Formats: sequence, C-alpha cells, structure tokens
Amino acid sequence: MADDRFHVYDTTLRDGAQQEGLNLSVADKLAIARHLDSLGVGFIEGGWPGANPKDTEFFRRARTELDLKHAQLAAFGATRRPGVKAADDPLVAALRESEAPVVTLVAKSHDRHVELALRTTLEENLAMIRDTVSHLRAEGRRVFLDAEHFFDGYKANPAYALEVVRTAAEAGADVIALCDTNGGMLPDELGEVVEAVVATGARIGIHCHDDTGCAVANTLAAVRAGATHVQGCANGYGERSGNANLFTVVANLQLKRGFDLVPPEALADMTRIAHAISEVTNVTPNSHQPYVGVSAFAHKAGLHASAIKVDPNLYQHIDPALVGNDMRMLVSDMAGRASVELKGRELGYKLDGDQARALVERVKELEARGHTFEAADASFELLLRDTVHGERRRHFTVESWRVIIERRPTGEVVSEATVKLHAKGERIVATGEGNGPVNALDRAVRLALERLFPELAELELIDFKVRILEGTHGTGAVTRVLVTSSDREGEWSTVGVDENIIAASWDALEQAVTFGLLRAGREPQEVAPVLG
Amino acid sequence: MADDRFHVYDTTLRDGAQQEGLNLSVADKLAIARHLDSLGVGFIEGGWPGANPKDTEFFRRARTELDLKHAQLAAFGATRRPGVKAADDPLVAALRESEAPVVTLVAKSHDRHVELALRTTLEENLAMIRDTVSHLRAEGRRVFLDAEHFFDGYKANPAYALEVVRTAAEAGADVIALCDTNGGMLPDELGEVVEAVVATGARIGIHCHDDTGCAVANTLAAVRAGATHVQGCANGYGERSGNANLFTVVANLQLKRGFDLVPPEALADMTRIAHAISEVTNVTPNSHQPYVGVSAFAHKAGLHASAIKVDPNLYQHIDPALVGNDMRMLVSDMAGRASVELKGRELGYKLDGDQARALVERVKELEARGHTFEAADASFELLLRDTVHGERRRHFTVESWRVIIERRPTGEVVSEATVKLHAKGERIVATGEGNGPVNALDRAVRLALERLFPELAELELIDFKVRILEGTHGTGAVTRVLVTSSDREGEWSTVGVDENIIAASWDALEQAVTFGLLRAGREPQEVAPVLG
Repeated sequence: MADDRFHVYDTTLRDGAQQEGLNLSVADKLAIARHLDSLGVGFIEGGWPGANPKDTEFFRRARTELDLKHAQLAAFGATRRPGVKAADDPLVAALRESEAPVVTLVAKSHDRHVELALRTTLEENLAMIRDTVSHLRAEGRRVFLDAEHFFDGYKANPAYALEVVRTAAEAGADVIALCDTNGGMLPDELGEVVEAVVATGARIGIHCHDDTGCAVANTLAAVRAGATHVQGCANGYGERSGNANLFTVVANLQLKRGFDLVPPEALADMTRIAHAISEVTNVTPNSHQPYVGVSAFAHKAGLHASAIKVDPNLYQHIDPALVGNDMRMLVSDMAGRASVELKGRELGYKLDGDQARALVERVKELEARGHTFEAADASFELLLRDTVHGERRRHFTVESWRVIIERRPTGEVVSEATVKLHAKGERIVATGEGNGPVNALDRAVRLALERLFPELAELELIDFKVRILEGTHGTGAVTRVLVTSSDREGEWSTVGVDENIIAASWDALEQAVTFGLLRAGREPQEVAPVLG
Repeated sequence: MADDRFHVYDTTLRDGAQQEGLNLSVADKLAIARHLDSLGVGFIEGGWPGANPKDTEFFRRARTELDLKHAQLAAFGATRRPGVKAADDPLVAALRESEAPVVTLVAKSHDRHVELALRTTLEENLAMIRDTVSHLRAEGRRVFLDAEHFFDGYKANPAYALEVVRTAAEAGADVIALCDTNGGMLPDELGEVVEAVVATGARIGIHCHDDTGCAVANTLAAVRAGATHVQGCANGYGERSGNANLFTVVANLQLKRGFDLVPPEALADMTRIAHAISEVTNVTPNSHQPYVGVSAFAHKAGLHASAIKVDPNLYQHIDPALVGNDMRMLVSDMAGRASVELKGRELGYKLDGDQARALVERVKELEARGHTFEAADASFELLLRDTVHGERRRHFTVESWRVIIERRPTGEVVSEATVKLHAKGERIVATGEGNGPVNALDRAVRLALERLFPELAELELIDFKVRILEGTHGTGAVTRVLVTSSDREGEWSTVGVDENIIAASWDALEQAVTFGLLRAGREPQEVAPVLG
C-alpha cells in the first residue's frame, strides 16, 4: 500500500474516459487498472456505479478479477438528491454496493451551479454534502470530495466555496479535491486560491484540466501551496484538452521535487506502461508526451553529436532510464542490444554477440515498418528462435489462401476462406466459414491441420485488435493486427503488419498457430522462407 | 507593425522544424510565414542562413515573395568562431547577406558548454558575443541574443551566466532571450531565476521547451517575473516534447492577463490559422490542443446538457468564438434529449419533441450495439435526416456486393470487389481492385456511381480506423469502423458496425458516399430499407 501522506489518485477510468472518441469496455478498464497498479498509484477511480451500468459491472468484476498490489479502488458518485435522505437515495446505495473502500463524491461549490444545475438552495446543497458524507462514513467508507467548478466558484462567491470545503471536512471527508472543471486557471492565481483554502485546515487535493496548457503546472502550483493529493489521467486523457497528465505530474514531483510517490523500479517502467495503456484505449500514443513519448529524448544530432557522446547529461534534463525511456540519436532505436539479450535470457535462449546484433537490427527494421513486439511476446520469441537457428523453422508452410466475403441480395453476409498448406510431406486444402474473414481463415487453418496436430482443438483466438498506422517516408498506411490466443495453460500474442488487413491478420494467425504448436511440444519440421 | 514593448517571437521555421519527422520546403516556410503574419506575431525567425542552404534561399525568396503586414523577419545564427573577427567570419557574413532586419544570435551561457562544445575559454566566449553583436549593430541590424542552456548554466555558474547577459546588453543586443534548452525547468524555480536576471536591467526574453509539460506555464512565469519577449512555435512544434505553443501563450496572455498582443480579429482567426499551418506541415492536428483543437470546446457530459443550454459560459473557460473555435456537443450514450436537440439546432434542423425522443432512442440503441456518433458527425446527421423525414432517403440502394482477397502461391496478395447497385432506375454492376478489401470496395462503389454522379471524383477516403468491441449481452464481438472522407470543401466521418469487418466497412463507406452526395447538393431519390 502506498504512503497515505501524499495521494496519487488516477481518474483515467472515469474522467479520462470522457475524452472524445474514447470508449472503454469493462475488460479494457480492468486491464488499465492493472497497468496503473503496477505503476504504484495510490487510488484508481473506477467509474460511477449506478449511473452507468458498465461501471456497476466494473466494480462487480473487480472484486474477483482485480488483485491490486498498491492501489485502492474509488467509486465516484454525486451527493444525494435534494430533499431525500442519503440512506434512501438509490444512487448512493449503488456507491455502497460497489464495495469500493473509497467513495469520491462530486459536489457543487459554485453558487450559480447549485441554482442552475442542481436547482436547489445553497443551504440544501450543504445539507446534501453533510448528509451524504456522514452516511458513507458511518457505512465504513473513506470519503473524498471533488469540489466541482471550485475556482470559478471561489471567484464568484469565496465565502460559499470555503463553506463547502468546511462542511465536507467536518462531516468526515478525508480530502477535498479542488476541481478546475473548466480548466481555465493559470498557475499563479490557482496557487493563491489553494493557499487560502489550505488555511481552513482541511486536507486539500487538486484536479486540473489542460484548457490553458497548464494542467501539470497548475497541479504543481497547488502542491507547492499545500495540496497533498493530486488527480490526473494516464497519458493526459480527458474531455476537451484533457486532464492533468498523471505520468508527467508524478515524474516532475518525484524526479525534480524529491517526492517519494511510486517505487523507483515502477517509475523506470513508466514508458512501457504508458504505451501498454494506449494499446488498450486504441488511442495513438502522443510521441511528444513528456518523459514517456517516443520523441521525448530524441535528438536530431547534427551539431552536438560529439558533445552528447562526451556528456549526454548536458543535453537532457533527466536520465531517460529513470522513466524507462531512451535517448535516441538517429532513426528509431526502440530495442537496444542489452535489452534484447536480457529478454533472450529471460526466455531461456543464449544469444551470442552477433546473434544479438542481428536480432536488434531485425527488430528495428520490423518496428520501423509498424510491428510492435512489446505487445506481441510470441512474435518476438519466434523471431528470436529464427535468429538462434539461422532459419525459419515451421510446422507448416503456405502455398496460398483466399477469402471471399459476400453480401447476398437477402442482406445476409457470409465469409468463406480456403487455405492450401504443406505439412509433414502432405499438401492439404481446407475451407472454413465464419462470421467474418479472420474467423473464416482461423477455422480453415485449424481444419487443415487438426488431423496432423490434434492439440489445435484446444487453441482459441480470444482477442483481435486492429490499428491503422499512418504511412511514413512516402509509403502508404499499413494495418497492424494483434491476435491473442489461448490454450488450457495460458495466452500469447502475435503481431502481423501489411497494407492489406486480411494479409496482416493471416500473418498474425499463422504465428499464433505456430507458437501454439511449439507450446504443445511439437518440433517444427519445415523450413519456411523469410517474408518481406 | 506590432507594438515593440512586448514581443511575440515565432521560431516555428527554425526551432519548430527540429521536430522529428517534420521536413519543410522553402515554399512551405513561405506559406507558414504568411499564416503567422496574419495572426499578427511581431517576429518570424526564418532559419539559419549560411548553415543551411534551404534557409539561405528562404531569405532570398522572402525579399520578393513575402509581403509581411505585421511581422519582421529574424535570421538566426551563432556568434563568430573563436579566434577570428566577426567581420571576417563567413557565417556572420551570411547573416548580413540575408538582409533580415533582425539577427538572433545564439550564444553559450553555460560554462561547461563553452569548454565542451565550443572548445574555447570563458573569456573568448564573452569576446565572441561582444564582437559579433557590435559588428551587426554597426551594420544596422537589430540584434537579439538567445542564451542557450541558460538555466542549467545559471545553476552551475550564476556569475558567468549573468556576465553573458551583461556583455550582450552592453554590446547593443536589444533582447537577451533565456533558453531552457533541455526543457527541464519548473515554473517556480524558473520565475525566480528570471527575476534575478531582470534585475541586471537588460531586456529579457524567454524560450521554453515542453519536457516537463510546463513550457506554457514557464513562459507565463517568466513574463510575470519581467520578461517582455516570448518565443514559441505554432502548434507547439519542436524537438523532443516540443517548444512552448505560441498559440496557447498568446491566448493566455491576451484573454486572461489583459495583454494586447495581436489584433482581436486575428485572434478570432487563430483556430483556422492553426489548422492551415498543419495542412502545410502535414502533421495531424492535435485535437486536444488548448484553444484551437477540434475537441477544445467539445462536451460529452449528457448530465449537464440542460444547464449548458441555459448558460454555456458556466461550462467553458472562455467564449470559443474569441479564438475562432466552437462549442460542440458530443452525442454519446450519456446524452439525453437536450443535447440531441442542441446538436440538431447546431446542424440547422428543427426537431419536435417526438422526433427528438425517437432520435435519442435510436442513438442509444445503436450505441449499445457499438456505434459511436461523437466521432461520426455525418452518420449522426444522416440518422437525424432519416428521423425528420420518417424514412431512409438515399441516392442508391444495394443489391449485393462481394470481396475476394487472395494470397497467390507467388506470395502476392490481391483484393477485388464487385458491387451491384440501383440508382436513378438503373441496375449497375462494377468491379474495383485495391491494395486491401476496403480500398477495393471504395473503388468499386465509386466506379459504379461516377457516371451518374460525376462529383464523386472529388471524394476521397482519407482515414480509416478499426476497433474490435467486446460482445455484450451474450453476443459475439463486433467490429467498429470509422471512415473519414473529404471533398474540396471539408471532411466528414461515418461509422459502421458489424460482426464482419468488411460489412462494417461497407456500412461506413455507403454512408460516406451518401453524405458526400448530399454535400454536393444531390437530393436522394430512393427509399432504402432500415437496416438492423
């Protein structure tokens, strides 16, 4: 469990999900929560149970499917409605039933919003806060309060805004997070307001949006003024211009202000975590993102190349290894020799120097063409095996395949795939039907091979992800397909890249089956040509 | 000409061009300079004549091809080399020959950099600054000095860093711009250093990079501490995490701090200018960019829609019209009737209560099945039209289609699509080939319709996104496809959902073509059955 004196509170799953175009399934949310926990954040806000059926399901599944090491889950919700008891409000009940140990209540602190959006009196709003906080405290929950539109409210009616803070604190809220909901504040003014609120004696948190490009700086200004709880989102996701980027905030505070927020080894994994989360959200990673972006430590060498070699620290604000990133001098250099050797050892292969160099070259070449090995462990292992053997050993080779997708005049859509393969000296032709072209191809290849390799009956395609990558260096766009497969024992992922989405899918499927057969102990007999 | 008391100094064409993947031709640079001038910036740094032949040509062509209304051109270059006279240094000559009225000299202010990169003494570095500044002043140029690595230098050896500032000012430099070259500063510390330097009496400028996510806030902190010259780049372009975003800086200072930097009517054109520049650079615009991003004033929260109708200013930090942007209401599963009505009004349709209710129901039903209308404005507008008309009016109807993707024994992959359509009483059959199944379908449908609707020649599919959505309520996974299309006038997006990826793509394509024809003023003649 993280130190309670300073909170790192993530709201990717709730406020970050407000980002235009972002649409997370329950499985996506569970996956993101695991990544955030591995970074070592203290709190993960899971959503609004009761208001959103998907979020209710998230908390239900989290009880059995999430095994958090550092973080505690927080359920987000509103104070009770005007004129009812908190104990009788069904939305408050949903917060209790979520079984989250922490409840974060959003409350109005701007007088005009109380009148306009809540349509109640200023007094009743205070009663709603008092009643809901005490009720949840009595039910054994820890309560945080998000004071919505706080800074605009403070400008309009400072006495009332402060009264909201005092009321919540007296009723038992542990933290009052001041929200710059419209994101319009600048750091100097925000710092002054936070200082005034900290003087009330309540424990203060900060929640910023990036509408002035100052969300990170505003968060730091609040911390300087005495806030001890920072909210933000992975990769700066969020509505409009986004929320404060939690990764940037954590790195700034820990590396430049001496805070001890997450374990150093987790911080050194931050770049990987940031990219893994963007694989789940399917939002293209911002290459310019501070600390974790692919370009964050990239130098167009030129003039300074020799000086950089003598003393790289003169040309970078931190050692990129502290956040798991790398200085890059020229073109893409995602994998270094050392990490490839390390990974090889981890997988039980011993690479000599030449092999490691050859593998690094091949990884660079393929990543430049859109492959990504971080999310495709099995593809990396196949590449590694091919390097160690000096040839591509496979259980089967491909003569050709064909997929037909047809929408008939009745409106019915049918998919049919035919594969022609060679295995164990035989030529096999098989046809599969499916609810889509990839499903049809998957069935065809398994139908073709099941007689020779009966263990393929256990193999299942469980996830399929597609991303269109912008073309670079004058080439057109390519499609990257990630396939996750499983057998009784576990899961593995493979990646395929091609300008044709079906060819990319085939590439990933073929590797998935090959890796499945290796897992089953089958030694490959054929030597296949190296592609591309 | 802009007011000289406060400088807005753009360095997009020099430091912004250091961004990874950015490669500007001379024509691109001239086009960007015109856009920046129309925004009303005071200075445009054109490049480094002499060091870069493209930049030499830029200044040569600028003399006849650029007719700047507000801005002055600045040529960037280094102080003379050690041990020669400024008058004899060919690189200094290139600065004179550029005929730019302003020369910005970069100089070392960090003692270690003087030794390591310049390989000269601290005294000679001061002499180089003194000599080069006075020489260019004597030649009638205005001189600014960029003090490179200033903040790291100040930390290491404050006396020497200040000596650099004094030397340059005494030799006649009008502005000493303090550069946070590594981008590692945070606002509080940076402000304190700037304050100390301002006390020397020299006129101070600021040049920030975004490596801590604080470039904008650092610039504001410097201004607060007394800097009267701000440097930045359009859209935050620049090496690593980018330079300070000049648009964000200008909007913050002018709209929130009362500075009078650019004409209000130019500020009201900033969103268009930002997008026009990204057309030239060919860098995808950041939809989350403060003030000018497409999402900067987009609201998803259905809860607040009714309050937004009453008083939009409670929910946005500025009136978006001040920067030429618009509030947009996103249609999402959280949206209620109020936001659908608002969106309808925004599009110019008047819905009655029953129609609005029916539309909300239809949106919810489709979003539950995986559609997303917030990213597919054209699909929403088609749905809205269908609701208003009470039927699905289309320009063509579909009898059937078929796509074949084949990998031949040679390894070659080919895609071929055949569509059978009905339009204007005709039955049309057409076949298209493409580098993938969707490309082939797109060609086939346009080939089929181009004779009847020649304007389809202008229509282009410019972006294609695929997402696999987990099944819910016992159904299998579905595929969501988002297609962005364009004609001469603009862009629009459509969404298709199906368990079959090709059928989902067809769905989005069919709507894309329909919407394109509506934009071209074609009234639909056929009534198509409602799908699903």
